[in-house]
Amino acid sequence: MIQKDTSFLQGNFFLETTYAERLYHEYAAALPIIDYHNHLSPEKIASESPFESITEAWLAEDHYKWRAMRMNGVAEAYITGSASAKEKFQKWAETVPYTLGNPLFHWTHLELQRYFQITDILQPETAEVIFEKTKEKLQQTTALQLLQEQNVEILCTTDDPADTLEYHKKLTNQRGIKVLPTFRSDRAVAIDAPDYKKYLQKLSAVSQIEILDFTSLLDSIAQRIQFFDDTGCLLSDYGLSGPLLFTEVNDTQANAILQKRMSGETLDTKEISVYRSTILYHLGCLYHKYGWVQQYHLGALRNTSTRRTKQFGADAGCDSVGDFSYATSLSLFLDALDQTNQLPKTIVYNLNPSQNEVFATMMGNFASEEYPGKMQWGAAWWFQDQKNGIENHLNILSNMNLLSRFIGMLTDSRSFLSFPRHEYFRRTLCNYLGNQINRGLLPNDLNFLGKTVQNICYYNVKQYLSLH
Amino acid sequence: MIQKDTSFLQGNFFLETTYAERLYHEYAAALPIIDYHNHLSPEKIASESPFESITEAWLAEDHYKWRAMRMNGVAEAYITGSASAKEKFQKWAETVPYTLGNPLFHWTHLELQRYFQITDILQPETAEVIFEKTKEKLQQTTALQLLQEQNVEILCTTDDPADTLEYHKKLTNQRGIKVLPTFRSDRAVAIDAPDYKKYLQKLSAVSQIEILDFTSLLDSIAQRIQFFDDTGCLLSDYGLSGPLLFTEVNDTQANAILQKRMSGETLDTKEISVYRSTILYHLGCLYHKYGWVQQYHLGALRNTSTRRTKQFGADAGCDSVGDFSYATSLSLFLDALDQTNQLPKTIVYNLNPSQNEVFATMMGNFASEEYPGKMQWGAAWWFQDQKNGIENHLNILSNMNLLSRFIGMLTDSRSFLSFPRHEYFRRTLCNYLGNQINRGLLPNDLNFLGKTVQNICYYNVKQYLSLH
Amino acid sequence: MIQKDTSFLQGNFFLETTYAERLYHEYAAALPIIDYHNHLSPEKIASESPFESITEAWLAEDHYKWRAMRMNGVAEAYITGSASAKEKFQKWAETVPYTLGNPLFHWTHLELQRYFQITDILQPETAEVIFEKTKEKLQQTTALQLLQEQNVEILCTTDDPADTLEYHKKLTNQRGIKVLPTFRSDRAVAIDAPDYKKYLQKLSAVSQIEILDFTSLLDSIAQRIQFFDDTGCLLSDYGLSGPLLFTEVNDTQANAILQKRMSGETLDTKEISVYRSTILYHLGCLYHKYGWVQQYHLGALRNTSTRRTKQFGADAGCDSVGDFSYATSLSLFLDALDQTNQLPKTIVYNLNPSQNEVFATMMGNFASEEYPGKMQWGAAWWFQDQKNGIENHLNILSNMNLLSRFIGMLTDSRSFLSFPRHEYFRRTLCNYLGNQINRGLLPNDLNFLGKTVQNICYYNVKQYLSLH
Repeated sequence: MIQKDTSFLQGNFFLETTYAERLYHEYAAALPIIDYHNHLSPEKIASESPFESITEAWLAEDHYKWRAMRMNGVAEAYITGSASAKEKFQKWAETVPYTLGNPLFHWTHLELQRYFQITDILQPETAEVIFEKTKEKLQQTTALQLLQEQNVEILCTTDDPADTLEYHKKLTNQRGIKVLPTFRSDRAVAIDAPDYKKYLQKLSAVSQIEILDFTSLLDSIAQRIQFFDDTGCLLSDYGLSGPLLFTEVNDTQANAILQKRMSGETLDTKEISVYRSTILYHLGCLYHKYGWVQQYHLGALRNTSTRRTKQFGADAGCDSVGDFSYATSLSLFLDALDQTNQLPKTIVYNLNPSQNEVFATMMGNFASEEYPGKMQWGAAWWFQDQKNGIENHLNILSNMNLLSRFIGMLTDSRSFLSFPRHEYFRRTLCNYLGNQINRGLLPNDLNFLGKTVQNICYYNVKQYLSLH
Repeated sequence: MIQKDTSFLQGNFFLETTYAERLYHEYAAALPIIDYHNHLSPEKIASESPFESITEAWLAEDHYKWRAMRMNGVAEAYITGSASAKEKFQKWAETVPYTLGNPLFHWTHLELQRYFQITDILQPETAEVIFEKTKEKLQQTTALQLLQEQNVEILCTTDDPADTLEYHKKLTNQRGIKVLPTFRSDRAVAIDAPDYKKYLQKLSAVSQIEILDFTSLLDSIAQRIQFFDDTGCLLSDYGLSGPLLFTEVNDTQANAILQKRMSGETLDTKEISVYRSTILYHLGCLYHKYGWVQQYHLGALRNTSTRRTKQFGADAGCDSVGDFSYATSLSLFLDALDQTNQLPKTIVYNLNPSQNEVFATMMGNFASEEYPGKMQWGAAWWFQDQKNGIENHLNILSNMNLLSRFIGMLTDSRSFLSFPRHEYFRRTLCNYLGNQINRGLLPNDLNFLGKTVQNICYYNVKQYLSLH
Repeated sequence: MIQKDTSFLQGNFFLETTYAERLYHEYAAALPIIDYHNHLSPEKIASESPFESITEAWLAEDHYKWRAMRMNGVAEAYITGSASAKEKFQKWAETVPYTLGNPLFHWTHLELQRYFQITDILQPETAEVIFEKTKEKLQQTTALQLLQEQNVEILCTTDDPADTLEYHKKLTNQRGIKVLPTFRSDRAVAIDAPDYKKYLQKLSAVSQIEILDFTSLLDSIAQRIQFFDDTGCLLSDYGLSGPLLFTEVNDTQANAILQKRMSGETLDTKEISVYRSTILYHLGCLYHKYGWVQQYHLGALRNTSTRRTKQFGADAGCDSVGDFSYATSLSLFLDALDQTNQLPKTIVYNLNPSQNEVFATMMGNFASEEYPGKMQWGAAWWFQDQKNGIENHLNILSNMNLLSRFIGMLTDSRSFLSFPRHEYFRRTLCNYLGNQINRGLLPNDLNFLGKTVQNICYYNVKQYLSLH
């Protein structure tokens, strides 16, 4: 059993200098949260029904925790299987001590503190009490209340183009929280997916534009973008498994490839690349027209385990860091949009840290007077989203780009209990800058640096999304 | 001349906090050594004859030192050539001060201390005395005595499938040390090697199974695996120069490719890949059947200097870090075994640190309830096996996997004087954890962390290899 | 406004230990500068006319600053456009506070201190005074005087093979400074450049050897190398955008490819690779014959923005870190030269830090008794040339090569105000070693380490270039 340590994760955790303490407590801590990218369910946000237990809130969707439990040898029945909520929580509690050093260990205890005022270490001996204590609160709390408690101001969810956004429409500033949709184009682009034809039928139906060819597909998509825009959408997103392979923009070929796909023929890699390149280009132009921000998530190797993919589908905890080359392809893609002055504000997230410098510097190539910080190298993502990963990101961003123009943190989370990760990020940022002052690498002007911190944590993204 | 510094490499070296000191001295220091992967000669271990001088023990096989001497401009005669043992040692002594900052500098002085109680800095001015003093001891010490002195409990050597393991059979727990063989499959797989045909004849002979086709090759290999298993083997190993290029498992094609090779025809890259993929798959299934651990060493660019390869063959000190892509191929390979529930416990070592995150996360994809920590991202290897490399490994393992389940250090060495590298690793581990406690990132429970240290240094690997 | 901080960038900046302070002040600070690779204009060096303002000296050529201004949203008119020198400087002053954490912030203030004794933070409020104060000095100072003030002893510029080197001939040790040419072969190799035919005509003219085929091209190049050698040249350089793709050395094919190109036909990638491989090989042999050092700059992704390349040509601030694979190709190339004992002293610089270990270790493969430190992994380049990048370089060089044999810093700069970067490097080096002593990782012998520092900062490169 791990002994309780009253100094662990307390008031000044992560803050190693008095500069850091002042930057965090005086400048960062009180700011509201703009979580501009996450995977929360709008239906659950709009729902009045509370949670049954912490198992539902913590373990039902979180493939980070599933992985950790599997690595710790826990049987699948207790992870995704038929065991009871309490049994599953018990197995998670057995795993937590073995996550020492993993961000899950910090997140777990930070979330217990911030949502439930529990300062115990989660482990077999404390599991029962923690399970009951958290249940008590969760059974009387709605999702919106949880968000409000954490000072959330704006939430951008992730939504399919065919989505009707009915819950977003309902959620008009309830409890002072804006819940906005994000246009996630993956399925509209994925011509290699087995269900692409079926998906286009769905798009046809919802847009009331029959998709017969590439032109009518783009019309249908444009209709959806208009609809998303009317519903408050500010950003798009695209997630790619594997390399980008940008070729050229060619509408005629894209149409021929689409027709081939519709007629049931199989496409080769080249055809898929031309099609994807062309449609992504047109999407970019549309985003630019609407003043949206486009996001790209690059570098994951997804669904590596055939067994588990068959069993659970995607997001089963069997994804890892890929080693695909992106520099040339991504550069050509951004350049194609830039050449006709249709490059939107862009955020690119990369999963493989060995490509951090590739992305940090590439964003600078397409900087423009249109907007300071127009091209963003996105915050440390997924496996990189932990203290060291965030520090590396801040450091490389400083050295090779402009940290001052960074739009900061997002949770990318599927859990309503993840919002203390903004605190985790803010503390890491303040500590990073505090150490720089302490080592004489930055001028000792806390007023100026405090404003920089506030910009990174809140104001930059607010202006970037034109939310003032 | 470098002045003697009485604080250099003394009692608390590497240990920067009192936490680290306590973790090391109270928990780690006294544990026996399980060196589960090295390249020591079983013949030498079994031999009663002592060493002639430190030149034989240090310089005869160690291509790390050869490289350093060449980089320092030393003439080849004094490295691998005809100079006397004393002259060679003198040249090494001239080089040592120029290795400041290189792990060779630490290793050299740690080994002088631990085996010979010599605390001087090796340099031209001290070379003569050190040469004589070490000779005195070495001439009265056998290899087994050296191992015993360093508290070695289990040694796993690296052996060819055709090996008769005669020395392993002799070495039954002498001086309390188990010396076990490891099945290194490289030559059995290397269909592109010029001597492959000849090698298969050797395999036929030793297995008493005539290799006529792919099926009888697998039979012959299975016989060798049975023989190795009977002789105490617990692990296999495979080292790959270049990319993996996993294609598909196809016995029919593999057989056709083997026949083509037997008839003297040249194979193309695709054929070599199909053959290698198929045979590696079957080897994996056999390892799984025997409950062995499979090891893969990936990422080296070997034998880059044609001149030196002609002169010395492999392991001449002309290997470096490759930049091959592995993510997709390795994932497909592990998945192929996993799909039929024949994926053995696996350790993968990578040489290029920019792929650390690729490997650290991929191992998590195939985690399973069969065994906690079943899929291991192997300890920092070769060029990475130094303080910074080990720290990076521990840190990435913590952030992206479970440090607590790590099976720890091995020397991978060709020298009987390398065992203080376990101490070097243990100190680095304890210092890493001590710093984490000191910075408030881990709870201050030395009892719990001390057990974690002991698991990583000894108990995890003992259980992993079913050696309890 | 950032408050003035009297401790920022003062006497002991970057020096965190008393060891570091002593190493820097007692050993490194007073040494002259050998800047063995930069892009200064020999014409400007030879010119007697002073600078008009700091805008000319700082902003006219410096695409690092252009990028930062664009990332900060500054309009192009104020960067490369028609705005006045004062207006442009004002916009740079507005940008500087946003470069906090970027090396530009340190460089800017270090240069203001060292050349102008200005200790204010550059920002809108101080811009006017700084502009006038710097103008006062610059209008009475020549380029040579600026160099002399900074204790520059030797400068190696970067020059095209067709260059007449007239300014180098003029500049014979004026004010005690040697200005030597470097043979930058890029244009002579670039058979894929649109103006290659025209360039060969230029080479024919200047060498007085008509280029009719591959043999006469090599003759013409050999004539230029002789001419450069006569004018004091000691090094060559080659910069590659994209992968190396070394194939084989084949004079017959190279000649056929050249003939094809001369006749106006288009070449494919394979042909370009064979041609480049062959000509680079012959260049290497010539450099070896003349005892020159060959330099390679690898890893950039250049001219990514079509818009800006059309507007400004190369070096417009739209280059970034590439992710090309080099290990196999570069190894084959170096081996080809090594096999016939014609491998010159070589320095290879890489832009992508994730390949640091690939390059650091590859250089060791071709080490030789000809010269200690013959094969150099070049100093942290371009985006890597900042405190963290330099520290990473020193650390990897230590761990995987021999730091003691490192030939140290060069500015690679286009600005006459960049020479304090040698101070920046020296402080970083001394701090790195000081921290190592402080942590007990190096013996505490400042006399010995001070000599190592002096070797890295000055003596190693002096001997490497045979300049004693």
